[in-house]
Amino acid sequence: MIIMKSEATKEEVASVVKEIKKYGLRADVSRGAYRTVIGLVGDESKIPFSRFEILPGVKEAFMVETPYKLISREYASTWEPEAENRVINVGDIRIGGEELVFIAGPCAVESREQLFRIAEGVKKAGGHILRGGIFKPRTSVHSFQGLGANGKEGAEEALHWLREAGDTFGMPVITEIRGESQVDLVSEYVDIIQIGARNMYDQDLITRVARKKKPILYKRHFGAGIEEFLSFTEYMVAEDNKDIILCERGILPLGKGKSYFRYTLDVAAVPAIKRETYLPVIVDPSHAAGRRDLVYDLSCASIAAGACGLIVEVHDNPVEALVDGQQQITPDEFEELVVACRGVHDAVKNRRNRD
Amino acid sequence: MIIMKSEATKEEVASVVKEIKKYGLRADVSRGAYRTVIGLVGDESKIPFSRFEILPGVKEAFMVETPYKLISREYASTWEPEAENRVINVGDIRIGGEELVFIAGPCAVESREQLFRIAEGVKKAGGHILRGGIFKPRTSVHSFQGLGANGKEGAEEALHWLREAGDTFGMPVITEIRGESQVDLVSEYVDIIQIGARNMYDQDLITRVARKKKPILYKRHFGAGIEEFLSFTEYMVAEDNKDIILCERGILPLGKGKSYFRYTLDVAAVPAIKRETYLPVIVDPSHAAGRRDLVYDLSCASIAAGACGLIVEVHDNPVEALVDGQQQITPDEFEELVVACRGVHDAVKNRRNRD
Amino acid sequence: MIIMKSEATKEEVASVVKEIKKYGLRADVSRGAYRTVIGLVGDESKIPFSRFEILPGVKEAFMVETPYKLISREYASTWEPEAENRVINVGDIRIGGEELVFIAGPCAVESREQLFRIAEGVKKAGGHILRGGIFKPRTSVHSFQGLGANGKEGAEEALHWLREAGDTFGMPVITEIRGESQVDLVSEYVDIIQIGARNMYDQDLITRVARKKKPILYKRHFGAGIEEFLSFTEYMVAEDNKDIILCERGILPLGKGKSYFRYTLDVAAVPAIKRETYLPVIVDPSHAAGRRDLVYDLSCASIAAGACGLIVEVHDNPVEALVDGQQQITPDEFEELVVACRGVHDAVKNRRNRD
Amino acid sequence: MIIMKSEATKEEVASVVKEIKKYGLRADVSRGAYRTVIGLVGDESKIPFSRFEILPGVKEAFMVETPYKLISREYASTWEPEAENRVINVGDIRIGGEELVFIAGPCAVESREQLFRIAEGVKKAGGHILRGGIFKPRTSVHSFQGLGANGKEGAEEALHWLREAGDTFGMPVITEIRGESQVDLVSEYVDIIQIGARNMYDQDLITRVARKKKPILYKRHFGAGIEEFLSFTEYMVAEDNKDIILCERGILPLGKGKSYFRYTLDVAAVPAIKRETYLPVIVDPSHAAGRRDLVYDLSCASIAAGACGLIVEVHDNPVEALVDGQQQITPDEFEELVVACRGVHDAVKNRRNRD
Repeated sequence: MIIMKSEATKEEVASVVKEIKKYGLRADVSRGAYRTVIGLVGDESKIPFSRFEILPGVKEAFMVETPYKLISREYASTWEPEAENRVINVGDIRIGGEELVFIAGPCAVESREQLFRIAEGVKKAGGHILRGGIFKPRTSVHSFQGLGANGKEGAEEALHWLREAGDTFGMPVITEIRGESQVDLVSEYVDIIQIGARNMYDQDLITRVARKKKPILYKRHFGAGIEEFLSFTEYMVAEDNKDIILCERGILPLGKGKSYFRYTLDVAAVPAIKRETYLPVIVDPSHAAGRRDLVYDLSCASIAAGACGLIVEVHDNPVEALVDGQQQITPDEFEELVVACRGVHDAVKNRRNRD
Repeated sequence: MIIMKSEATKEEVASVVKEIKKYGLRADVSRGAYRTVIGLVGDESKIPFSRFEILPGVKEAFMVETPYKLISREYASTWEPEAENRVINVGDIRIGGEELVFIAGPCAVESREQLFRIAEGVKKAGGHILRGGIFKPRTSVHSFQGLGANGKEGAEEALHWLREAGDTFGMPVITEIRGESQVDLVSEYVDIIQIGARNMYDQDLITRVARKKKPILYKRHFGAGIEEFLSFTEYMVAEDNKDIILCERGILPLGKGKSYFRYTLDVAAVPAIKRETYLPVIVDPSHAAGRRDLVYDLSCASIAAGACGLIVEVHDNPVEALVDGQQQITPDEFEELVVACRGVHDAVKNRRNRD
Repeated sequence: MIIMKSEATKEEVASVVKEIKKYGLRADVSRGAYRTVIGLVGDESKIPFSRFEILPGVKEAFMVETPYKLISREYASTWEPEAENRVINVGDIRIGGEELVFIAGPCAVESREQLFRIAEGVKKAGGHILRGGIFKPRTSVHSFQGLGANGKEGAEEALHWLREAGDTFGMPVITEIRGESQVDLVSEYVDIIQIGARNMYDQDLITRVARKKKPILYKRHFGAGIEEFLSFTEYMVAEDNKDIILCERGILPLGKGKSYFRYTLDVAAVPAIKRETYLPVIVDPSHAAGRRDLVYDLSCASIAAGACGLIVEVHDNPVEALVDGQQQITPDEFEELVVACRGVHDAVKNRRNRD
Repeated sequence: MIIMKSEATKEEVASVVKEIKKYGLRADVSRGAYRTVIGLVGDESKIPFSRFEILPGVKEAFMVETPYKLISREYASTWEPEAENRVINVGDIRIGGEELVFIAGPCAVESREQLFRIAEGVKKAGGHILRGGIFKPRTSVHSFQGLGANGKEGAEEALHWLREAGDTFGMPVITEIRGESQVDLVSEYVDIIQIGARNMYDQDLITRVARKKKPILYKRHFGAGIEEFLSFTEYMVAEDNKDIILCERGILPLGKGKSYFRYTLDVAAVPAIKRETYLPVIVDPSHAAGRRDLVYDLSCASIAAGACGLIVEVHDNPVEALVDGQQQITPDEFEELVVACRGVHDAVKNRRNRD
């Protein structure tokens, strides 16, 4: 990291950036109320920091050992008096702000009618952003893989419906990208790109997505430690895209015997991550629960723990859903959940504001 | 399980119980509004159920395969129209009722003065039951093991303080038992006996404790599945002690890299367990978090998920605490937590009541 | 699955395949000594099996519920009298045959000289196939990412060295692919394509790699159950590429306290997987151990458990290695390991042959 | 830890020990070829080490932070030129010596005849020590709990059979203790006391068992880290009983989907533990596998990894076994396993001897 003197000129900053590039690294320049700080992106062991310290305008130059720094509150506090929570604006929606944000919709887009019916329900129930899966990650090659599997035309048709439904009901839209070949296509249609848990470790894919400079909803892998999750997030921020919404969705369950839910919701990850980074943190209670009757409980628990929003699977006829029917709730149940979560949010926010 | 006819006489029930004993099993007789049901305790494979079906007063006799049945809502529903939540009364306190119950106090009793100071703080802050560790389970034989390690006299002195502090401030008291030799002694002094996570699997110890017929706070082991937790609970209920408070306190964390908390709070276990059994479920946020600044968040999340109370470590001077200083909160912080939890409880209770 | 009559003609088989395609699925046709069997690839719930049963030449048509079938011994046994182990031929090397196969080389290719020195050592020590990482998956964007990060030219230069070193010392070569953009390039240079643990769940990437019709070394993710591992393997076999070498490399470690190794080698996965599928299974002891002094022990244990080979990181100067120095062994240590493993293989093979 | 001068007298050592006791700690005195070393047992933070350094005969006095030291190679090396492996002699059997040791017998003693038949088979097959469960730890109170559940008389009868069978076929005997009330009784009858995985954390129980001064076979809990396992071992060695045989028996399995075995055999724990402590390490492949057909593979893998022996469940009629029938092997299968393990042991021992 290179900290510039408060009186450093633009030219001096530019000259440091140029010098950094000579060593094959990139520079992340942050101009704050205090001063300008330059984060290095890449293998810092190649950098002779002592040589940088004598460049004009440089106050300090040193190596940072942590695997994530661009996203850390600690790093942000070097150039801003207070490292505040980042608010990501998507249309009128402010993710990470004072109000809770609810993302909802069907696990998989099945038809135009299904999507419009559910979108209407979601909107009425208080939802802000519409989700709908088109490229479905599936364990079995023999399962339904989403309409995205029907060639480019099928995928585009479904993406078009999603865009249309969002516009019709006044909600930004989000869908998941599963492979590099989908990045260009999906980016044209959606407001937020989702990276699923199974792709969390895909450094090539997430880098490519980040370059689109669109907001990204990034899910933690079910086997990933928090440090790993944040380290891989750094890959995207290193592409100069800080609009990353982190999402906890459950980790591998533990212990012998019958399963009572699909994944273990790591609710403590929410406040723990918030203490590390200024990026907003939301929760997906549906995939963690894997059963409809626990979604309400896990949603309330997540908000109580400090999540700034939720992404919930909503279906008007869960029993008939092509994917994950057992965990999707109806628009009515969703509305009840939204009301309860707001009550919980009010109950805990005094302390939150003081944090 | 043997279901008696609604018109079965006491004598017929007694005669079935006698027959069961011949096979080396015990009988758990439940008389409900509907009818009388006799649960078998022991190895059911020895029982010739067809022979029981022809005994006078018997309606049905069949084997139940689940490892827990005496504690299950399903079993309870065979003799009661509605299997309601069990409320455990300890003095004036109702555990499992409408109101939240807060158990709090120091991790370890260190001195009479320390205990009284903290007890006063806990009471003022809204605590209901006083906790204080005397026999401390510790990973290292070279660590402080609690005042219980100072021979019988030392243990008794500490137990006496605990009783006195509880009486002085009007709170029932609870402490942990770690070995069979402590059962008789501790039972004399406390209102609730705690079985710690590490002793969850000790079928001999928990059986012996259950025979004292006192309420038991029973913690889930950090490596135990929910089914195992409930199956071992059945050992105690099989001793005809249904006053068991189940406690989730975190499971083994998962994933590479730095630890951000001590255990993974399995918040979904709370609603999942409540759907299986009528026994009350509380949470210990302190041992799960292992760090002071997450206790508030995990407490609120637990209540939001449906816990009917908490057991929290409170110390007036955490930095100087002999054990677990890093996770104990002050009485002031505890008060703030109590207020927030009540707000959360109000926000979610509509749904809860409908469950 | 559709089982043809033993007397079914080629035309009848072709006609069934054509019918399957009408429903949007693909067909995997296996002609065995017994009969011809057609496995369906895709969402079988769309198929009206009763309509297929009346087509000419069809004996039986039914749905298979398991998420993996094309790779299962059970499925293979429907058309072959004995479902034998698949042997994958790479040059003169037979992977999955009677002899053990040792894949070895540096974690990362660092320079032509380094690679040639190590390749020579590996060959002398008894290695069969040369490995060398060019696109390195790394947790931190700030770490060395392999020579593949130096643009297309850098990557090609390193790939060229790998090919050259393999040819010089008479060893087929293998390297890892991390993203879809590397597939075409890497396929031109190597004999076996490696999919690393972190990419195990990438259904788009692995599908694309499988289409190259080259042998694939496929590593289990450290959070993946065996069923998931085999289910995702099915994605590749569904592309009509059965040359998949499965590789166990350790799963997430469990339990509090100090780490004594990097991952938990799941040695039982080796015999368990072998009972499910005919595909060959090898082990990577280096990444599991994460420390040099355990590589010998884990290698011997893996062979004793029935692995048909190993992939081992070997470096002539581990202390100076750019990546994973702490787990790479020297060519001399590797030779000792090869000798011991052969001894172990001899000691256990009687039973193995009988399996 | 207090290191005495090489010329320190017995009186000086005794005087240091006396001083230690004043602080409420115990002393573990080790006299080696080099010098005498005094390990402190208890809470070292109470000890003013600087005051000890000026006592006559004392060379150095300092605090040791590790939770296990009495059992560590590092500690042992302070008084012995080479900290050698500890060999535990039980009758003629040397556990931890050059030869492998096989402990075998039925999961549960069912009858005198059953035990004698199996004991004979075990002996013929090459077994050294006879195992037989009398107090069975079970998940369900409704399952068969072993003959130990039939009151004191039933337990004593079964213990008597075990002793008799051992004497008849010339094998020392071992059985498991599950609760404190069994300690005195069992100690009278057996040569080695087993502490099962579920009781690993019971510091009161294991302390009480250790005081019997008999060899102990101590199993790692399925949720315990290696550091915890060794730390709890220290509780027993602190009672001046160093005859502890450590046993790996599998940890909690990880990953979604079908189970292919009961627990994950942590084979790397064997060499990792051997590098930490001089105590012998064996493996229980039966409980790890939970299925008969993997016992051979896991046994060979364990020996290859450096285990000095195995404890295997053997039954002459597994299908009829009252407990764990699915994982018990026949005497014939056991013999085959013994032969293969010896071959594996020969193949790896060169390296082992050099360690």
